Amino acid sequence: MNTADDLSGRSTDTPISVREIGSFHVGGEMVSLTGMPPRVRISTNNGAAHPIDPNGEVIVGQMYVQYVKLAAPRSSSPMLLWHGGGMSGVNWETTPDGRPGWQMYFLRAGFDVYVSDAVERGRASWAPYPEVYEEAPYFRTAKEAWEETFRFGAAGTWHTDPALRRPHAGVRFPVARMEAFMNQFVPRWAINNARTQLAYDALLARLGSSIVLTHSQGGNFGLTAALHAPERARAVVSLEPSGAPDPEKSDPALLRDVPRLFVWGDYLDAHPFWVRSLPAVRRWADALSAAGADVEWIDLPARGITGNTHALMADDNSDVVAGIVLEWLQRRGL
Amino acid sequence: MNTADDLSGRSTDTPISVREIGSFHVGGEMVSLTGMPPRVRISTNNGAAHPIDPNGEVIVGQMYVQYVKLAAPRSSSPMLLWHGGGMSGVNWETTPDGRPGWQMYFLRAGFDVYVSDAVERGRASWAPYPEVYEEAPYFRTAKEAWEETFRFGAAGTWHTDPALRRPHAGVRFPVARMEAFMNQFVPRWAINNARTQLAYDALLARLGSSIVLTHSQGGNFGLTAALHAPERARAVVSLEPSGAPDPEKSDPALLRDVPRLFVWGDYLDAHPFWVRSLPAVRRWADALSAAGADVEWIDLPARGITGNTHALMADDNSDVVAGIVLEWLQRRGL
Repeated sequence: MNTADDLSGRSTDTPISVREIGSFHVGGEMVSLTGMPPRVRISTNNGAAHPIDPNGEVIVGQMYVQYVKLAAPRSSSPMLLWHGGGMSGVNWETTPDGRPGWQMYFLRAGFDVYVSDAVERGRASWAPYPEVYEEAPYFRTAKEAWEETFRFGAAGTWHTDPALRRPHAGVRFPVARMEAFMNQFVPRWAINNARTQLAYDALLARLGSSIVLTHSQGGNFGLTAALHAPERARAVVSLEPSGAPDPEKSDPALLRDVPRLFVWGDYLDAHPFWVRSLPAVRRWADALSAAGADVEWIDLPARGITGNTHALMADDNSDVVAGIVLEWLQRRGL
Repeated sequence: MNTADDLSGRSTDTPISVREIGSFHVGGEMVSLTGMPPRVRISTNNGAAHPIDPNGEVIVGQMYVQYVKLAAPRSSSPMLLWHGGGMSGVNWETTPDGRPGWQMYFLRAGFDVYVSDAVERGRASWAPYPEVYEEAPYFRTAKEAWEETFRFGAAGTWHTDPALRRPHAGVRFPVARMEAFMNQFVPRWAINNARTQLAYDALLARLGSSIVLTHSQGGNFGLTAALHAPERARAVVSLEPSGAPDPEKSDPALLRDVPRLFVWGDYLDAHPFWVRSLPAVRRWADALSAAGADVEWIDLPARGITGNTHALMADDNSDVVAGIVLEWLQRRGL
């Protein structure tokens, strides 16, 4: 039994009683595409060729949200799970090594869970470029994921041959399942921060008081959403946020009453992206603390939990990390 | 109470007991991207600019599958829900007018339900073009959806101003929720039929004996998947398939033991795309019948159910149509 089992009384094979599974989109606006040449398409094998006019109205900027509502949630606040960059809500589902993910974990712990796909990702859809998005997308490569963002191994240790990949000693990510993790990658753009923030803000406005739990790029959106509507954020849990608001531009005192948890894994010093990214987050956390907010900054290795990567919810001890988050929430009556 | 309630004993507000919600990807292969120029990106607000090398390994051709497994399914065969073109599995979730969709319907009726996002759609991700996919994608416009594919109104009746849209008389699609339906549209390509079929075949191979329920473009994939593995298809339900195998090229006798249901809505004669597309499907259904298969072809208006569009699972009588499917399955002991 891990910490979380002790706390929640849940078992990983007890059924949950579900009132409804469903989804909706928030945000988005209709735009008209014009000036594009007509095309002709065969839409199915053995089908007839038919004309396609690419001009007309499409919706852009929408975000997808899938919810699972329990028959009898133990928490009065729903848990919102916001993924990171180049990812979708799939990150919170079954882990690459086939175990139940954090969506199931927090359902079993008694929360209604809302998993979103941010603007441009997964089931949120995306808009034409360069007609609507101003640039081409970025496709995450295995090397970037392995050596830089997710910290599975040091620079130069990714290899297409699994036998020749050299992960960090003691790494908790199931590296034999790298391809399963890569299946979850989706393209991203760097020009949609404003559209995405609008959609996240719209989600909080729709749901009201919620617990926001974010990963990586989702972190800055979550921290900023709380800034835009402190009364709607019951708590904000940030797993390795890649950025944060700037205390010179935003007032941390607005967030005095919103409890904050930051969780960090291992190998941070060995990866330039994280060496560059972490100070801005530390600065915001310190500013929140100075303003009187309840802020906890958990460095897992300092607690003796070593080997965690940036993929905290996919590492082989993902339930232990979830248990730490759950305990933190429960100590605050959530 | 509608037909479906009578048949299944379910109620739309009785909780369901769920053993697990999770997901996986099937299909896909690793490819190496080369020769692309380096880029520089700022990945989050207030973040540092950092170099991005777009070259390297990505996975292409994978398909996403989300499952909900019941604690005590009434059916021994899972229900696989395969969406149509320019769509994702979201089609089977909450309807545009906010009612539970077919995913919930068949869960309440006692089936484990697997909702997929086909290759290139939604959470399946997509690959760079022209580097991997040979052409640019198609974005569904409102006009195409309204006037052609989904048959909400005749040619010339779409308008950006909702007050000026002129739907067919008696239409069952909740036209006031057109924008919510548009939120579900995702880009499509016309060059991925082979990749997509491989992924669907891999899904059936993974799950074994299953009920395949398809919509529109998913129809041809479902009919072909059954042809590739008749022993794995317990039944195939095709909602308005846009295409079908060609009996000159494929042997319908292979499918003698696979029960088939085809369901068609209203206004088909008024829309050239359907006038062109339907005969190939009719030809395949007739060939299956001639080969001795159990084939039912339901024309809803002929049963007195008028006003259904191509969005049968989103129309305001979606539960009635689901009930017809459920009754057909139950009569076959599924």
